[in-house]
Amino acid sequence: MSAPGSEDFPWPKAGTRLEDLATPIPVIDEDRLAANIARAQSYMTEHGLNFRPHIKTHKIAAIAHQQIEAGAVGINCQKLTEAEAFADAGFDDILITYNILGVARLMRLVSLNKRVARLAVTADSAVTIAGLAAVFAGQKPLSVLVECDTGGGRCGVQSPAEALVLAQQITAASGLRFGGLMTYPAPGGAARVETFLQESMALLAEAGIPCPIRTNGGSPDLWKAHLVPSATEHRAGTYIYNDRSMVRAGECGPEDLAMHVLATVVSRPTADRAVLDCGSKALTSDLLGFTDFGEIEGLPGARITALSEEHAVVDLSACTAPGPGVGPGVGDLVRVVPNHTCVVSNLFDRMVFHRAGRVTRVEKLAARGTVW
Amino acid sequence: MSAPGSEDFPWPKAGTRLEDLATPIPVIDEDRLAANIARAQSYMTEHGLNFRPHIKTHKIAAIAHQQIEAGAVGINCQKLTEAEAFADAGFDDILITYNILGVARLMRLVSLNKRVARLAVTADSAVTIAGLAAVFAGQKPLSVLVECDTGGGRCGVQSPAEALVLAQQITAASGLRFGGLMTYPAPGGAARVETFLQESMALLAEAGIPCPIRTNGGSPDLWKAHLVPSATEHRAGTYIYNDRSMVRAGECGPEDLAMHVLATVVSRPTADRAVLDCGSKALTSDLLGFTDFGEIEGLPGARITALSEEHAVVDLSACTAPGPGVGPGVGDLVRVVPNHTCVVSNLFDRMVFHRAGRVTRVEKLAARGTVW
Repeated sequence: MSAPGSEDFPWPKAGTRLEDLATPIPVIDEDRLAANIARAQSYMTEHGLNFRPHIKTHKIAAIAHQQIEAGAVGINCQKLTEAEAFADAGFDDILITYNILGVARLMRLVSLNKRVARLAVTADSAVTIAGLAAVFAGQKPLSVLVECDTGGGRCGVQSPAEALVLAQQITAASGLRFGGLMTYPAPGGAARVETFLQESMALLAEAGIPCPIRTNGGSPDLWKAHLVPSATEHRAGTYIYNDRSMVRAGECGPEDLAMHVLATVVSRPTADRAVLDCGSKALTSDLLGFTDFGEIEGLPGARITALSEEHAVVDLSACTAPGPGVGPGVGDLVRVVPNHTCVVSNLFDRMVFHRAGRVTRVEKLAARGTVW
Repeated sequence: MSAPGSEDFPWPKAGTRLEDLATPIPVIDEDRLAANIARAQSYMTEHGLNFRPHIKTHKIAAIAHQQIEAGAVGINCQKLTEAEAFADAGFDDILITYNILGVARLMRLVSLNKRVARLAVTADSAVTIAGLAAVFAGQKPLSVLVECDTGGGRCGVQSPAEALVLAQQITAASGLRFGGLMTYPAPGGAARVETFLQESMALLAEAGIPCPIRTNGGSPDLWKAHLVPSATEHRAGTYIYNDRSMVRAGECGPEDLAMHVLATVVSRPTADRAVLDCGSKALTSDLLGFTDFGEIEGLPGARITALSEEHAVVDLSACTAPGPGVGPGVGDLVRVVPNHTCVVSNLFDRMVFHRAGRVTRVEKLAARGTVW
């Protein structure tokens, strides 16, 4: 018997029926995936925005190639290991939207920059920029964008004036080039993003600093990207698979959900309780504002009320289908719509794709299991 | 540059200082680990209970060997892939506390049973037992324990009468042997477990069915295992690393925490906000009843209020150390006590161990990334 992580582990072959897969396993609908890629790219093209898909959602080179072929200008990574893995796969335009700190990682960034045609990172502090400046002096210059907090409440400078100060620091460093402005806004924050960008661009222009890229982000605001006319680029990850949170937000319909987690009913201890084999090590505990851990297709009213690591407890007491006192039996397969697909991907070595109920391919994920 | 998952990725060598590790990375204190193993085993031995550690917490063969050497009778796995990986590593007494269903997995279970001296699984339904009976007919017999719901509200038969019916079904199957009773109770449920076991044992005795093993479980009730005198065995996983939830439950002290997640402060956007590089892909979103995502050592009052995938947002507004308006700076390392260690392990390919601030070893995790 091969170890589960090994190359010769019996991953399903093309043509395998979905109902013959061992569960729990996320599966990706090829047609929905392709449609999600095409629809987002068309929208961006229509509005004159460059599109830079975030690969954290899928971590699969073949999928990123589909995104590039559709018209994306490059890819967005969230950590150095992702960028390294995708550089290995031949991607030549990579933005790492992260403050890279620490000598070991900075040296790897220098090495990465030598083999990627267009590499950029973000920074939101003098400390981050000083670290970059120290290792890139005398090297092939690195593009650095200033991250702006436009209401997202995570990283980013708090004002256009601070953005200018950091842009000046970047410009003054011999190994760095000021690439522009980056933000990951709060949902619905278009007006605030536009104001922040306009004010920052005015200050930069006044200081004689070109600001070629203004990159805005987020799947929740994907279809509102055109409401930020000062942006040149939009980044998004989740849109490619979509998930329950995207449906709730009205950003997609159930017919656009490309990922489902196949699970088996492993227990029916009571009339009102079913237990599935998709626990927190398959769905994650991400709630994203929900009070339950995913939605089971075809069982309206059923609620996944608790997860342990390899079990999901389902409350069927309010389930209105298929009839009173019934519900799925032990051994039945169900399809779960996860709350958040980006974190589900991160739990699996491979992703299984399908069309018309049959496996089409199995793709290996990169840069998961190693956070460095 | 080697791919992050590959064997030649630059994992830290023995002797590396913890402060030189790239973050985010969970690290295990060797001395606390050894003390946790020894203390739990001593307690079980003192109370005449067999101890069966649950390897889902660490998924590392070398650690399970330490547990066996300390006196454990065997190991507990939660899924078939874990059992397969640990059989590969030479473990010969394995209990899989799960309903194994589906032809593909059942065939693997037959194969596994041939090479493991003492393999057992659990079942809580006639469907599960029928599946086992079908594939084990004519094979080396498999030991099957009946899972009992003693208040945990997950899997398990609801009454001793149901336990008897399933024990009879197991006994009647030529390829199966009734191994006994298993429960994973609600915390504080000792009295209810004892009653359920006593009543079930009486019914089984009346029916002439021996019940050699009565296995109780859980780290939350580890030190109350002796309150279930009818149990012959206890299972526990989390005790080996402990975590914030175990401290809150009073089951261990801060000095027993063997796992910390090392993280770097990557941003200080405001006086009250710090951002760490340990997001939901390092800590998971498991709350276990907390309202924040982990505790930062040395920063009382600091709260990890939000996680995104690669960021943890820390609210410092109520932080009482080290002084007003301060807190850690960009680039500083912090140590986070995770809410739940078992799910953190599952996110990493390797685990780094240390003593006196220096790396002692790096161990590979088994059966993660593949849920099958």
